[in-house]
Amino acid sequence: MLDLELIGRTAKEMAAYTGRLGSSEKDAVLAACADALEARCEEILAANALDLAAADPAKAAFHDRLTLTQPRVAAMAQGLRKVARLDDPAGETLYMRTMPNGLQVGERRVPLGVVAIIYEARPNVTADSFGLCFKAGNSSILRGGSEALRSNTAIVAVLQDVLEQYGHPREAVQLITDTSREAARGLMTLRRYVDVLIPRGGADLINTVVANSTVPVIETGVGNCHIFVDESADLETAAQIIINAKTQRPSVCNACEKLLIHRGVAAEFLPRICAALAEKGVEVRGDASVCEAFPAAAAATQDDWPREYLGLVIGIKVAESFDDAVQHIRAYSSGHSEAILTRDYALAHRFTAEVDAAAVYVNASTRFTDGEEFGLGAEIGISTQKLHARGPMGLKALTTTKFVIFGNGQCRL
Amino acid sequence: MLDLELIGRTAKEMAAYTGRLGSSEKDAVLAACADALEARCEEILAANALDLAAADPAKAAFHDRLTLTQPRVAAMAQGLRKVARLDDPAGETLYMRTMPNGLQVGERRVPLGVVAIIYEARPNVTADSFGLCFKAGNSSILRGGSEALRSNTAIVAVLQDVLEQYGHPREAVQLITDTSREAARGLMTLRRYVDVLIPRGGADLINTVVANSTVPVIETGVGNCHIFVDESADLETAAQIIINAKTQRPSVCNACEKLLIHRGVAAEFLPRICAALAEKGVEVRGDASVCEAFPAAAAATQDDWPREYLGLVIGIKVAESFDDAVQHIRAYSSGHSEAILTRDYALAHRFTAEVDAAAVYVNASTRFTDGEEFGLGAEIGISTQKLHARGPMGLKALTTTKFVIFGNGQCRL
Repeated sequence: MLDLELIGRTAKEMAAYTGRLGSSEKDAVLAACADALEARCEEILAANALDLAAADPAKAAFHDRLTLTQPRVAAMAQGLRKVARLDDPAGETLYMRTMPNGLQVGERRVPLGVVAIIYEARPNVTADSFGLCFKAGNSSILRGGSEALRSNTAIVAVLQDVLEQYGHPREAVQLITDTSREAARGLMTLRRYVDVLIPRGGADLINTVVANSTVPVIETGVGNCHIFVDESADLETAAQIIINAKTQRPSVCNACEKLLIHRGVAAEFLPRICAALAEKGVEVRGDASVCEAFPAAAAATQDDWPREYLGLVIGIKVAESFDDAVQHIRAYSSGHSEAILTRDYALAHRFTAEVDAAAVYVNASTRFTDGEEFGLGAEIGISTQKLHARGPMGLKALTTTKFVIFGNGQCRL
Repeated sequence: MLDLELIGRTAKEMAAYTGRLGSSEKDAVLAACADALEARCEEILAANALDLAAADPAKAAFHDRLTLTQPRVAAMAQGLRKVARLDDPAGETLYMRTMPNGLQVGERRVPLGVVAIIYEARPNVTADSFGLCFKAGNSSILRGGSEALRSNTAIVAVLQDVLEQYGHPREAVQLITDTSREAARGLMTLRRYVDVLIPRGGADLINTVVANSTVPVIETGVGNCHIFVDESADLETAAQIIINAKTQRPSVCNACEKLLIHRGVAAEFLPRICAALAEKGVEVRGDASVCEAFPAAAAATQDDWPREYLGLVIGIKVAESFDDAVQHIRAYSSGHSEAILTRDYALAHRFTAEVDAAAVYVNASTRFTDGEEFGLGAEIGISTQKLHARGPMGLKALTTTKFVIFGNGQCRL
């Protein structure tokens, strides 16, 4: 019988413990976890084989995400080693000022406390989430997809064994093994104990969490990313960037989904870019001008503009002006990554100011929206909300601050 | 007929407009709003008189909060002038780095966008919320308590007239005049348009918003604040701080509600502090040791320890040790403000590290937890959650960041 109250209370106690650990203690655990995952790879793969045997082989993409192999376990281990090498975000005093009455008032960065992660059937997220939460001084509650339960259980056993070997409580990371919907819903309302809930997965999972959670949520996300080709753009560079942003890895959230082409270069650029995309296997859906310039294009419908394809499809529209393009982006953007390709200084700066998204680009591929590429080290997700963290979230997003006040008897007048 | 969809869509359009205003344009509007509120004071007081006539005069505290007077309107105006003088938080580039591939990646502070505020029958919150939101470049949707509707309508009319005089759209601030519960619930789920919802008011209001909102919420808050008197404390100073923290303004969230006294000084300090509190009209509720030392004390029940009295009542308990005190605080703290009074260097530092609250104090009154006292200028509330903002929230809490990336043709490998 699942006792969520106990899991929550334990996690809160654990957070008081993990929050006091020094960086070197935490890094030693992370490095040892990496070694142990590699050493116990067979055991993890055996558990994964049972998960795979129970899974529907017809769902190929799902099956692939669920599958662990020796190199994939090694990659999980490498991920933990990398997190161990990052700077510890907690403990820093951001500033301390002396107020007129002599009070010293400062802000200190501290762990969030209890971080819960709800995710789908991707066992690599288990080690990864633990690593990031633990490094920032948090205790974690993990709730992965039911289809990966045996794999997750094996991985968490390895992590907990290492914690114990190093003299720490096993419950610094807890896995919810009840994969019922009720258990997930219960976790979403464990507000007394859980400081933040991060859903990692597709739009359905995220929407369910946002709709049902009373715990504060960091929404990660959906990317309906646009590239606007201004009439002043270098068209050779533009073509390279667009092909990269659309085709280098089409299944991810920072891939380009929509292309807006300034009317002034449409006649020249449209046939060329459509042909180049088609050659890469991309299905083009366009407005009337696009279909005219590239007869192989399908007509885009109203459903296309807000849609995240996550595959080899692109929606293309001719924009009458810079303002028309910004207007379109404002209407349909998911607030993830938006780019302008231009040689115009003023438009480059107007675009970064007027487009409201986690990442706004000038003359580069949207595919760079990523914690590593932005220099944050590892990332726990890409936030498309505006509260707390926006864009790629590194370790700092797993911390909060507290005011620390040193006095010598001050009373308020 | 209330059209929340229209209000939301308008607010989003307005946010694009207000987000582009320069600081001097915004400050000019705020100063003119202050002047206009004073100039049209009669009109506002007339509207307020109608609200007051319809209100239940038996609820004295409620009546007082609803009441506007000429000095109170002048204070609202002064508040706006003060906000105008604060630094504009938006527009700052926090850093910009050149990555190995030549991409310049930076983070820029930008307005949140659309900020909605739900509050009770306190008309001063109307001008105050508009001022802070507008200064940070946000558009605002205000939904005040039904009992203050005429006052709020009059105040918002003044603000909107000034916006129009200065050539800005009136809808940069919108008041929801439908004061039904359905309208409030509708606002809480206007996730497509509203970037953050801040409830300003009592625990009931905040809990309703947290339970029903799909829009990200910043929870402001409840304060069950503790003071722990360590055995090494200077007892003379301790008495002054405790009297200040409990009685200087007992109805506010940073007032002291609970006192923990180390066993080592209980015999000496308990009778003295209880007598001093009683003399100030404070009702003492204590554990067995307290009742023994101060027979006028009532016995505290389990209900007392988590409770925020917001009045002249205090709960007192003898702690067997520092750890016992921290344990008690951890169990019952609302995460607002917690203080230790001590002369012990190590315990002072352990307390600030081990107690998990928005503000942790050594040797000072908890009453200082306030945006002004902490040097943030004006405040929009005191956050007791850990996400986004913790403790007093100044203008910076009304902003977010975006990544800005300048490239010259970079594609991802």
